[in-house]
Amino acid sequence: MTRFVDVGNMVRWAAAQGTEHILAEMVGYVEDDFRRWEDFDKKPRVASHTPLGVIELLPASDHETYGFKYVNGHPSNPARGFQTVTAFGVLADVSNGYPTFVSEMTLLTAFRTAATSAMVARKLARPDSKRLALIGAGSQSEFQTLAFRSVLGINEVSVWDTDPAAVEKYVRNMAPLGFDITVATSAADAVRGADIITTCTADKAKAVILTADMIEAGVHINAMGGDCPGKTELDPAILARGDVFVEFDPQTRIEGEIQQMPADFPATEFWQVLTGQAAGRTTAEQVTIFDSVGFAIEDFSALRYVRDAVAGTDFFDEIDLVASPEDPKNLFGLIGALVPSS
Amino acid sequence: MTRFVDVGNMVRWAAAQGTEHILAEMVGYVEDDFRRWEDFDKKPRVASHTPLGVIELLPASDHETYGFKYVNGHPSNPARGFQTVTAFGVLADVSNGYPTFVSEMTLLTAFRTAATSAMVARKLARPDSKRLALIGAGSQSEFQTLAFRSVLGINEVSVWDTDPAAVEKYVRNMAPLGFDITVATSAADAVRGADIITTCTADKAKAVILTADMIEAGVHINAMGGDCPGKTELDPAILARGDVFVEFDPQTRIEGEIQQMPADFPATEFWQVLTGQAAGRTTAEQVTIFDSVGFAIEDFSALRYVRDAVAGTDFFDEIDLVASPEDPKNLFGLIGALVPSS
Repeated sequence: MTRFVDVGNMVRWAAAQGTEHILAEMVGYVEDDFRRWEDFDKKPRVASHTPLGVIELLPASDHETYGFKYVNGHPSNPARGFQTVTAFGVLADVSNGYPTFVSEMTLLTAFRTAATSAMVARKLARPDSKRLALIGAGSQSEFQTLAFRSVLGINEVSVWDTDPAAVEKYVRNMAPLGFDITVATSAADAVRGADIITTCTADKAKAVILTADMIEAGVHINAMGGDCPGKTELDPAILARGDVFVEFDPQTRIEGEIQQMPADFPATEFWQVLTGQAAGRTTAEQVTIFDSVGFAIEDFSALRYVRDAVAGTDFFDEIDLVASPEDPKNLFGLIGALVPSS
Repeated sequence: MTRFVDVGNMVRWAAAQGTEHILAEMVGYVEDDFRRWEDFDKKPRVASHTPLGVIELLPASDHETYGFKYVNGHPSNPARGFQTVTAFGVLADVSNGYPTFVSEMTLLTAFRTAATSAMVARKLARPDSKRLALIGAGSQSEFQTLAFRSVLGINEVSVWDTDPAAVEKYVRNMAPLGFDITVATSAADAVRGADIITTCTADKAKAVILTADMIEAGVHINAMGGDCPGKTELDPAILARGDVFVEFDPQTRIEGEIQQMPADFPATEFWQVLTGQAAGRTTAEQVTIFDSVGFAIEDFSALRYVRDAVAGTDFFDEIDLVASPEDPKNLFGLIGALVPSS
């Protein structure tokens, strides 16, 4: 039998554990996997694009465990009552190829994206960072906010979204959790005085959410929304002004903010900062930019974490996904056994 | 909710419908999709190879429906009590990216492989074909046999496998269904006088199951087992003697029997025979070879068929795979709603 965490169990598990607790633990799993980056079988995601959106498969393997995520991205979905991003994921045993764990990943993707943002910011943002600017108050925004508090202790947030209802929803969710929230009047207003900026909008278009004149010295930009070909959020002048860090260079060149830049534009793979093979932040004035597109290893880490965390609890079901005839060569016998003999 | 056909439901559905009935109907779905081959978004499969086996993702889309299959291939599995091939698959709605249908595909892969073999043989084998030689009596063998009877009316089978227990199992399953079965003493013995030869062994190695001297004029060879790099079953001289038909040329060049041949070795994509754009069998003496590696569109067809066939029955469950908050931007609210306010 294969263990399965459905939406209901994911929600109940998250509520029971606490989002910040989960994010803090998940950052450990993601960081462990980034530190052993070179051990992974890495492939660019397999994307199927249509005018309405994209459906992607993101596989990764550490040669003991194989994992993949199915995920869509449809910017027009919320207007039609659907989630922009839905996902589910699978882990399998490399030694025999059997799937061992299936999980919803719509919620889990929000967790892993926030955990990755916080892991990177812990290394690249100024250690005295106190204030987060949040551009985009959609599905990801609360998870981002809680990750930055859980991992960096940040409690002060200025938030901006073109959709006032989204901001209202954000404040309704976050204010009771003790955050000091300012509702900004524009993106420029939001980022003024911020130590960390998260851009997290969902337009499937080249957009300029931030321009270079808004960027103050020493800021860390967590640029999440430039994540597919033709979809960017930052003025190219911002990229030229800061130092850019990426997950997996070949993928980010196609999907990230740096798709706007020449092929030889410098970018550092973040795992090298963790292992000490590359420099991260070197001065308090430096502008650091995490050009995040999401990578399969992060999903792999998140799935590993949930698999381990729900073991011994009742937050999973068992599903019969793999036919297991007693004689492995007698697959047909499974059916034959049910047919009355004539 | 997403519809889910687990192993138990697949087995009960197959037993209730009858394997031959299912195969006959499924051939229709596969052929429909092969006829509209050019409408599909086709990608070579994404494979993760290790010394023990391979795990693959096979995506396909017709721009309305997206599908993919997860499948492993581990030749050493049966010796350890596991299935060589296990699989599951998913269909999704391209317009919003939501998964709509999940199914076990260990059994379904055996069905779709047999349906594809029969679809091709109906077009390429001699119309007066009466005798099937089956080299390999593993998991696929009964499905192959039933497909050839269901679609081509073939009732006479000679079977050979290096594993006597597999042959015994095959005879035990098939003899009660009215087949005229000869247990051969060698591969050469099995193929003597056969009109159609199916090679279906699972060694992950270059093997020569058949040599050119065994091949009689007019035979159709359904070569299923050469299906990954380094794994072939036929003597290259056989390929040179016959006309080779493939599913998707770029994939078969890497994974099929023709990986043994020069890059310019002629091969015809089978869909072109169906649509009349290429010739199939032109003489009764011609040797035709279907170099089958399995392609994502066949899985897509099989999933479509099962989805349609189980609708209105109780052979599926519903699973909660996609988080659906009332406000699509309020994913966090799903968790927040369960946390007691302080």
